[in-house]
Amino acid sequence: MYQPFKISAKLEINKNGNCFLDEKRVELLKHIRQGGSILSASKEMKMSYQQAWTIVKQLNAISPLPVVIRQRGGSNGGGGMLTPFGLKLIDSFDEMIRLHGDYLSSLEENILSCFI
Amino acid sequence: MYQPFKISAKLEINKNGNCFLDEKRVELLKHIRQGGSILSASKEMKMSYQQAWTIVKQLNAISPLPVVIRQRGGSNGGGGMLTPFGLKLIDSFDEMIRLHGDYLSSLEENILSCFI
Repeated sequence: MYQPFKISAKLEINKNGNCFLDEKRVELLKHIRQGGSILSASKEMKMSYQQAWTIVKQLNAISPLPVVIRQRGGSNGGGGMLTPFGLKLIDSFDEMIRLHGDYLSSLEENILSCFI
Repeated sequence: MYQPFKISAKLEINKNGNCFLDEKRVELLKHIRQGGSILSASKEMKMSYQQAWTIVKQLNAISPLPVVIRQRGGSNGGGGMLTPFGLKLIDSFDEMIRLHGDYLSSLEENILSCFI
């Protein structure tokens, strides 16, 4: 069936009304995982180091366990490493997006089929 | 169980990448239904008449059937009336929000319980 209407939704995990995780933040975490550095991740995200670092600080402050460990000095100054918990967060969020996407597809069938 | 983390998501129905319906638009339609006028609805929404009218025009243009009929002249100049299809759209969207809310609650149980 041709389905021109689509349902979309941006997921966000909040705590006390503050954003904890959304797609952008998870993308930043993935870049830190990939490059081992908050600085390189900020460049990949086309944001300033300050912006990236502010997000990382907020994440760590809200999180029940540390998400990113900052590594000072050394040849890789400004380095950052995800904790095992941070790595698990990425996987959990991706799984959530996948499940939610499946759900939206079924919602499209049920709801949108009524009016197109 | 104490659940400090919450999942939220803003639903939107799109067509070819253009927004057709979201919570704000449905709120506007509800005000038109209530007051019988695009002008009064725009005031309730704290937007200009021009903004409200632009949304109504877009809705009608994207929709397979007219959503709002504009009524010119008379004592109630600038009036607007929802078509039966427009009324159905409101109900369908509300139902979608309700179902989706139930789903997000179950997703919270499944996903967030892993990391809090």
